[in-house]
Amino acid sequence: MQETSGNVIISAEPLTRFCTAVFMKLGVPPEQATAIAVNLVAADLEGVASHGVVRLPIYVERLRAGVVNPRPNIRVTRETATTAVVDGDNGMGQWVGMRAMQTAIDKGLGANCAFVSVRNSNHFGAASYYSRMAVAHDMVGFSFTIGGINHMTPWGGAEAILGNNPLSIALPAGEERPIVLDMACSVAARGKIIVAAKDGTPIPDDWATGPDGRPTTDPVEALKGFVLPVGGPKGYALTLMIGLLSTMLSGAAFGSEVTDMYEDLERAQNVGHLFGVLPIACFESLDVYKQRVDKAIREIRNVPRVEGVERIYLPGEREEISAKAQQRSGIPIKSSVWSELLKVGESLNVVMQS
Amino acid sequence: MQETSGNVIISAEPLTRFCTAVFMKLGVPPEQATAIAVNLVAADLEGVASHGVVRLPIYVERLRAGVVNPRPNIRVTRETATTAVVDGDNGMGQWVGMRAMQTAIDKGLGANCAFVSVRNSNHFGAASYYSRMAVAHDMVGFSFTIGGINHMTPWGGAEAILGNNPLSIALPAGEERPIVLDMACSVAARGKIIVAAKDGTPIPDDWATGPDGRPTTDPVEALKGFVLPVGGPKGYALTLMIGLLSTMLSGAAFGSEVTDMYEDLERAQNVGHLFGVLPIACFESLDVYKQRVDKAIREIRNVPRVEGVERIYLPGEREEISAKAQQRSGIPIKSSVWSELLKVGESLNVVMQS
Repeated sequence: MQETSGNVIISAEPLTRFCTAVFMKLGVPPEQATAIAVNLVAADLEGVASHGVVRLPIYVERLRAGVVNPRPNIRVTRETATTAVVDGDNGMGQWVGMRAMQTAIDKGLGANCAFVSVRNSNHFGAASYYSRMAVAHDMVGFSFTIGGINHMTPWGGAEAILGNNPLSIALPAGEERPIVLDMACSVAARGKIIVAAKDGTPIPDDWATGPDGRPTTDPVEALKGFVLPVGGPKGYALTLMIGLLSTMLSGAAFGSEVTDMYEDLERAQNVGHLFGVLPIACFESLDVYKQRVDKAIREIRNVPRVEGVERIYLPGEREEISAKAQQRSGIPIKSSVWSELLKVGESLNVVMQS
Repeated sequence: MQETSGNVIISAEPLTRFCTAVFMKLGVPPEQATAIAVNLVAADLEGVASHGVVRLPIYVERLRAGVVNPRPNIRVTRETATTAVVDGDNGMGQWVGMRAMQTAIDKGLGANCAFVSVRNSNHFGAASYYSRMAVAHDMVGFSFTIGGINHMTPWGGAEAILGNNPLSIALPAGEERPIVLDMACSVAARGKIIVAAKDGTPIPDDWATGPDGRPTTDPVEALKGFVLPVGGPKGYALTLMIGLLSTMLSGAAFGSEVTDMYEDLERAQNVGHLFGVLPIACFESLDVYKQRVDKAIREIRNVPRVEGVERIYLPGEREEISAKAQQRSGIPIKSSVWSELLKVGESLNVVMQS
């Protein structure tokens, strides 16, 4: 590993081995531990650090506290030819999510659309990891989840009863990269407000409100308040809908039932997800589809650019470019995160090798 | 009818009869003409005037110009147990949309999720009309379409190659009203910029850009430019994804293939849609589901409110309340729209009765 400007650079492989070893020390079986580690490191490779190994310490803490089950018995509790309800038995969200999305894909392989809802899961990381799984099978993939903490309020309200819920849709392409939408519903990530509070700098007035529900530029007030949704009532409606789709079709926790992933180490979270697939071949000849999507991608990439803009990106493109580059060059990890990882390793007798 | 403050008030029934008669004069068969009229007036009843009878003149113009087919032979061209591709034969978007959503519902009744893509359709009005159809069958309804005009540009670009594409998702409830998300991807409707240009008032700097792709507060420049998406790159990704889902699964027009509904009266538009249903009973006992959704709705409605806010609304609630009230009190139609309706009527020998 190398150190540059407050970052440590490490290759994906040793980082994955480290995370795998950490999970195994906490009783997670090898296949599962590896799959979760690969999932986490994939987010770091893509430059989506917020859903990568930065989460390892809280995952470890929850496993240690016994509020996440390292050896879940994941079961389908209700099923039709094209739908299923998966009970995650309080397992790690990544493992439950991958298993549930695979169930949707398996059902879709019979030339059907398929949707699978999930309960008794946990924080599953990046929503796009699951929607992307469908792309490899020439399917459109849908991935919904409810956020692990309530930081939003209904439009006009002043109570943290909604999560900043993410939605991902992944669309296969031909020669081009797949198009991958992955968005949560807030204008800005809460992490940015935390940084502004540390730095003592004001935030834009559309990022958050204080506890009274009124927009504020004071990051300290904002952290006591609520993050604001994109497009005002539109983002409120969208985060509510994503939250309900992720929980009402499976019996997962919603609203006041949601506990705080970081603050509550005494209760299981009963996180819910919803996954879906639409196999392209159900709708269009694969060749025609791929040619048309590639044409659309190239048309968008080649529009005239605003002065100073170097390149037009398709959704998900930056992440794939980053992943490819960092697979070679290594992943930059913030020094503060690196220290936490090493501390986790020390406490479990796991060494970071490079 | 009555006139108040620049509005004419008319009951839903005579307005529906008027629209029905207009469509029939243009060769649309009675059952179809009635269904389209009911669909349009439903939007006005809900207070969503932008998707109601204000569109009648352009629909009439397109039918007259022969670029919309009044007697389409709507066919399923590809099909599995849970999916279909519908060719709308260039019929009115409302009629094609209703038929296609009904196909999805019929396939869903066999306890499956179902998705139906559509090509060779036209502007279909309010996306929520179709998602709401599923609610009556205790299904979640999805409705995607590509907009009838390109007014958006990729993030960082400066070419109108994307529509302001709408998405609607409707979720059944128990005793409460269904929750209905219906949003397009722009911060503000282009109609508001047109109004500001007429009034000579500046617009907020997050509504639109000039033709150079840079944000502007000048509404005249904005009308030469592009409407801005909610949440910047998030809204760009979302409108792109909705557009692709609506067109790539059916062979409908996308990007540079999209013609302007208002400006191009020489070519059929080949509009695409995507509809989907998730029957609740596939995932959860209906009783449990309805109790839980009702509980969630009440929890949201009862959060503490920001000072001055009288009521917290659930998505779709304002529209249902408006529809119920205006079914009794009548629908306010802007005088300018009213004059256009009468002009259409005169040209076809159709009288507005009240």
